[in-house]
Amino acid sequence: MATALRHPTAVTAGADVRLRPVGLDGARITGGFWHARQAANRDVSIPDGLRRLHESGVLENFRVVATGEGEARGPVFADSDVYKWLEAAAWEYARQPDEQLLADQLDVTRIVAAAQQPDGYLDTVVQLRRGRRYGDPAHDHELYCAGHLFQAAVAQHRGTGRTELLDVAVRLADHLVREFGPDGRPYVEGHPVVEMGLVELYRETGERSYLDLAARFVDERGHGLLHEQDSQLDLTYFSDRLPVRQTTSPEGHAVRAVYLAAGAADVAAEAGDEELVDALAVQFEGMARAKQYVTGGLGARWEGEAFGDPYELPPDRAYAETCAAIGAAQWAWRMLLATGEARYADQIERLLLDAMLPGVSLRGDEFFYVNTLHLRADASADTERSAANGRRPWFDVACCPPNVMRTVASVAAYAATESADGLQLHQYLTGDLRGGGVAVHVETGYPFDGRIDVTVNEARDGARLTLRIPAWADGATLDGREVEAGGYATVDRRLRSGDRVELRLPMAVRLTRADERVDAVRGSVAIERGPLVYALEQVDQADGVVLDDLRLPERPRIEEVPGPGLVEGDVALRFAAIQIGHGAEPDREVSATAVPYFEWANRGVGPMRVWIPRA
Amino acid sequence: MATALRHPTAVTAGADVRLRPVGLDGARITGGFWHARQAANRDVSIPDGLRRLHESGVLENFRVVATGEGEARGPVFADSDVYKWLEAAAWEYARQPDEQLLADQLDVTRIVAAAQQPDGYLDTVVQLRRGRRYGDPAHDHELYCAGHLFQAAVAQHRGTGRTELLDVAVRLADHLVREFGPDGRPYVEGHPVVEMGLVELYRETGERSYLDLAARFVDERGHGLLHEQDSQLDLTYFSDRLPVRQTTSPEGHAVRAVYLAAGAADVAAEAGDEELVDALAVQFEGMARAKQYVTGGLGARWEGEAFGDPYELPPDRAYAETCAAIGAAQWAWRMLLATGEARYADQIERLLLDAMLPGVSLRGDEFFYVNTLHLRADASADTERSAANGRRPWFDVACCPPNVMRTVASVAAYAATESADGLQLHQYLTGDLRGGGVAVHVETGYPFDGRIDVTVNEARDGARLTLRIPAWADGATLDGREVEAGGYATVDRRLRSGDRVELRLPMAVRLTRADERVDAVRGSVAIERGPLVYALEQVDQADGVVLDDLRLPERPRIEEVPGPGLVEGDVALRFAAIQIGHGAEPDREVSATAVPYFEWANRGVGPMRVWIPRA
Repeated sequence: MATALRHPTAVTAGADVRLRPVGLDGARITGGFWHARQAANRDVSIPDGLRRLHESGVLENFRVVATGEGEARGPVFADSDVYKWLEAAAWEYARQPDEQLLADQLDVTRIVAAAQQPDGYLDTVVQLRRGRRYGDPAHDHELYCAGHLFQAAVAQHRGTGRTELLDVAVRLADHLVREFGPDGRPYVEGHPVVEMGLVELYRETGERSYLDLAARFVDERGHGLLHEQDSQLDLTYFSDRLPVRQTTSPEGHAVRAVYLAAGAADVAAEAGDEELVDALAVQFEGMARAKQYVTGGLGARWEGEAFGDPYELPPDRAYAETCAAIGAAQWAWRMLLATGEARYADQIERLLLDAMLPGVSLRGDEFFYVNTLHLRADASADTERSAANGRRPWFDVACCPPNVMRTVASVAAYAATESADGLQLHQYLTGDLRGGGVAVHVETGYPFDGRIDVTVNEARDGARLTLRIPAWADGATLDGREVEAGGYATVDRRLRSGDRVELRLPMAVRLTRADERVDAVRGSVAIERGPLVYALEQVDQADGVVLDDLRLPERPRIEEVPGPGLVEGDVALRFAAIQIGHGAEPDREVSATAVPYFEWANRGVGPMRVWIPRA
Repeated sequence: MATALRHPTAVTAGADVRLRPVGLDGARITGGFWHARQAANRDVSIPDGLRRLHESGVLENFRVVATGEGEARGPVFADSDVYKWLEAAAWEYARQPDEQLLADQLDVTRIVAAAQQPDGYLDTVVQLRRGRRYGDPAHDHELYCAGHLFQAAVAQHRGTGRTELLDVAVRLADHLVREFGPDGRPYVEGHPVVEMGLVELYRETGERSYLDLAARFVDERGHGLLHEQDSQLDLTYFSDRLPVRQTTSPEGHAVRAVYLAAGAADVAAEAGDEELVDALAVQFEGMARAKQYVTGGLGARWEGEAFGDPYELPPDRAYAETCAAIGAAQWAWRMLLATGEARYADQIERLLLDAMLPGVSLRGDEFFYVNTLHLRADASADTERSAANGRRPWFDVACCPPNVMRTVASVAAYAATESADGLQLHQYLTGDLRGGGVAVHVETGYPFDGRIDVTVNEARDGARLTLRIPAWADGATLDGREVEAGGYATVDRRLRSGDRVELRLPMAVRLTRADERVDAVRGSVAIERGPLVYALEQVDQADGVVLDDLRLPERPRIEEVPGPGLVEGDVALRFAAIQIGHGAEPDREVSATAVPYFEWANRGVGPMRVWIPRA
């Protein structure tokens, strides 16, 4: 075993990266905002999730394979629900060991292991329904499930020290190498994620053929292989229209596209492939410029759960799948490691707070699959995923809930990196961070409060402490000295144990306009404060206020008021707005209140909007 | 046989309507705009269509049933392509008899007839694929196909005098009465249209049980019958969430919703059900107010081909299916007959010119299934229906092409009605119109020219001539006297043979704003002239003009210039626009040219937009 770093991206010593993760041992959340989210995840989401695995039949599928009695339940990618839950349980155990949590995951692991074929193959739905392995690469999700299994197995090993799931993963990976490696056949599967999983398994085992296979999978895409199967397939949907290296903007199914890019970034790091990193940077920029919501959300189309065309970003029909936010955060993290550029850490902040977090209720018991930015008063609740239904306890396609669980359990891992230079802080949270010869404790009321107080607990001689200054943080100060927004600032003195470092990020309210080409929000602004996007929610308004008739005056006076108290320290924003009349009705001035977007729909569900037209 | 009116909606003598169709014998197009469209339909679309019926295998399905050798091809509703083509051929034959056209349709009719089961059942795909009749009411389209068969059979009888297809239709209808009539079981099918077909078959045969069955199908919807089949079904999609009489705004799949409403209007007329007419008027108004594009197009969502929520009308992701425009014109026509209200004739004008006609190339050889109102420069051509692919010769789901064919062939039928009072002209075209004791010839360059010259050829004593004044036609004059826009004007003198009546509709350019609640086009205007909506198309602009960067100045001077000549007499509009710069680029003034929306994508396909932001 090459490394024991307790982290989802344990880059090897030889990897070509600027920054290195500190792992979960180097980043522990001890209080504040994310601590509360992790408590809900541990106390509610993860136990609920296990119950759902049983109830929905996806776990039973493994038993049915083993016993030979019964039929497959759930969609073709059902196994992945189980694996993502296992990953969540492993990271949560790493955060805070608990015998029941360990027993539960080992129990699930045993059920999984029993379904594996002697040659390593494992995919219960294909085993139960079709019998033909790799027979429908576009639609079956055998490699997708394998990728999530690899991630879960590595998490289990790193998080609990147990090898049961890792043994299953290695057998399956060896089987894949035989099928699709240098002596096998070229293969493109419809849903990427195996690339990330294989690289991580390589990192955990040192088995180079896994990395090579991941590289093959990255480079075999975009050359028409899926069309050999079925010439009618829409290659765009499958991220297979163009090779990864020629893609300048992600397209098609959003989750597939960002998972693929994240896996390619992993390959690039381990293979030292700078050309690939550069191509991925271009692609990321194409996404950020013209295909990303102000919340960070990704995917403008329900049809095909897809990125739309550039500047096609309707708030009302935003798909912005919770999984896409998670995948993009994974991609951004790998780009941050590779390049050391602050814009990727800014993206992670936005993706986690404004795109992923709205996907789960604050109690941890319900989930949004789709994250709209606008819900009208008469919105139809036609489908399970309609925002008008509010968050749901689970879904027929249950990819998002366990994806949130594994991400929240391991979120501390995004907070910091280390390098020969010292420790870099990228995300602000209350906790202990350690790496690059520096150990600090951070106290902060972030994301509501911009005061970040850092206490140095240890500092190797010459090691430096570097802090991200978000691009929005004009006027930020570090130890009283103004620092430039949109980059990193380094404490310019020798660090000593007991030193205090004060970062102050101004929380002035900002009115954000979209690019002029985003037709759907022309003449409108979004309200932001610090790292948070705000939304008007009906429940906070006085009787008679109609959200879709509100207009923001020329120079609004926006006042900070206590938030609804859904999260400790939350801040709401109050301002005078104009409510336009229809027909003979006169316009009138009303008071409007906005709350952080991630808090919406936690007090029932009703009309909501992020973008507000100017008067 | 009760009536021989050569018309798709031959209301019976006892029907409760204000106005009565004059049929194809009472409305003949002799020149001008629609004459050219009908020529393309006859010379290109209909012969092409027959070839496609053969090539796509949907006709072969009937042969396979008869011979017992082979498999079904195409979607579950494949039979309906054949029926709609038969209807088109019949109306075209009625317009201009031709031996080959008759021989072709009788040939197809024989193939169809040979597949019918002894008890009258007919649905080749169900016969070939499943064997179980009415086994999947939500998704199989047995009644949908039957409805189109009934319409085709009636058209064949009325248009050619032949009874071969009518015999098939009557056998099938009798079978349906046995299955689902008073002694049968309640039944709701996923895709309405059988209601219209059954009423027309009742009108043609006098068989009352067909009307009663249509009424049952209308009233059985919206009571959860589909949920008895599968509780997971989205009833909204199937127009089955609410009873028709309680629906205040159409929802779900747009074509299904408007076909159902049109069939309900047929039932209401023949059953004298005023309550139902009133409910349908409320529903129509709900659609027109908040769920209809400026082009008349219907359906804001690709997902489910559906109406969106009220005011959800994105131009770029407009679905605006060609079939939905046709179905809505059918509905509006029935509402016009029932109420005599001009707004329904205004709707038909817009639906035909700005929503249906864009669905077919001016040569008649290619079709849009989806009618976008905005195509960006970098738009993806991911799916068959993407606007970036331009019109297509045919589709895997080929509902739209033959729907256009049957509508264009019989379009004259929408032009006029008669009543005890005399003749009413609703649509302006060059041709001979006769009814209510009045016969006239109309000459006009409409829809480009607002001069409508009417010559009276015959007039029964006391019979009056009434003309629609479109709601947009402020300043219209009838024989020099100003008449009010948005209603009807009657010639206020005794008509004599040889009289000339001059209607003048002002063709001033109008800048149309959407309701303030339509977020997607906030701050933008659409350009209209007469009955036509205009669009900016890249091909008409100078090099360097970027459509998505154009802004309309405060007081634009819009000049009429000759159109591209794709249609005789077409008019383009030219104006100075501001092209905004991005980054350091300065804004600059450019000349922009707009053409009638229905003409777009007839000279290749490129960027296009209907809504133009104001500077």
